[in-house]
Amino acid sequence: MKSYAKPLTRLIGELSKLPGIGGKTAQRLAFHILSLDDAEVESLATAMTTAKREMRYCSCCGNLTDRDPCEICQDKTRDRNVICVVENARDVYAMERIREYHGLYHVLHGVISPMDGIGPEDINLKELIVRLQDSTVNEVIIATNPNIEGEATAMYIARLIKPTGIKVTRIAHGIPVGGDLEYTDEDTLLIAMEGRRQL
Amino acid sequence: MKSYAKPLTRLIGELSKLPGIGGKTAQRLAFHILSLDDAEVESLATAMTTAKREMRYCSCCGNLTDRDPCEICQDKTRDRNVICVVENARDVYAMERIREYHGLYHVLHGVISPMDGIGPEDINLKELIVRLQDSTVNEVIIATNPNIEGEATAMYIARLIKPTGIKVTRIAHGIPVGGDLEYTDEDTLLIAMEGRRQL
Repeated sequence: MKSYAKPLTRLIGELSKLPGIGGKTAQRLAFHILSLDDAEVESLATAMTTAKREMRYCSCCGNLTDRDPCEICQDKTRDRNVICVVENARDVYAMERIREYHGLYHVLHGVISPMDGIGPEDINLKELIVRLQDSTVNEVIIATNPNIEGEATAMYIARLIKPTGIKVTRIAHGIPVGGDLEYTDEDTLLIAMEGRRQL
Repeated sequence: MKSYAKPLTRLIGELSKLPGIGGKTAQRLAFHILSLDDAEVESLATAMTTAKREMRYCSCCGNLTDRDPCEICQDKTRDRNVICVVENARDVYAMERIREYHGLYHVLHGVISPMDGIGPEDINLKELIVRLQDSTVNEVIIATNPNIEGEATAMYIARLIKPTGIKVTRIAHGIPVGGDLEYTDEDTLLIAMEGRRQL
């Protein structure tokens, strides 16, 4: 049995390291890449190396950016009194997509997770406390994910900030828009009941 | 609303051109690539350009290879009396995986498809006829896919080769191993009935 030639085997191997790309998909992608023009392959490859070289973390908020400080931190039109704390850079863009939040961000690059040996000092948290000193921030919105680690991290940050007198809020959790009571899991339903508001 | 920085946007755009990679997957892959080491990204990028540069079609059989003629054509242990005709290079490796076929291959790089304006002269067919002249080949196995274009191409090749006296065969089509009569489509069942063999 002849297997693929070396350069092809190597390409399939590299592709199958990507998340969600199994062996079959890696093969299909590799054959597709070989069917492209030289220029197209070059463009794909340099897009990767260029992005890796030029993208870095904002020294102020921790967001992914190609300039430092990032566009959001530099933007004079944004509300400098509010900071939204998120787990990672993808969450920043998720928040931006709602087009209703105009404050700043702080990216934690993870959550506190004792099970994985990740403590408060392993995430981008000290920098948040430093940012809050001598700032005009009057509200910190914690938008970590609604799971055990996300909740624990939110509680930890809230306890840390409360003594400074800055308001700490948590985004609401409940039944998503378009969701169906019948198909909602018990944890979400419980949280939705607990978070009920007067009409 | 701030969108991704330029290098990231470009990377997402390049990735989403790949088959089966939608916008969401491209974003996930792009963020993953940014989370890799410089060396890992370099390795992925060069695997692409190297494969594209070094892989070519075998001048004899049309298979994808990094040397010409390809490993299979050069292999003295293979049976030079049989040629298996397949649609593309991926099919060569599918055949190799059964570990039971030890003959040579001929890759058509397509099938005859008048609907798409692809005639016999647009695929790697003339080269097959040239190969058969002055060769010791005594059987040509046609393993194009069992659909309209694949069948038409098989018939066309069979008619072309028959006058030379070389045996032309077609791989069997029927119910796949592990398949279930109840869930087999009518076309497959019909072909399975027509292709029945005496026990």
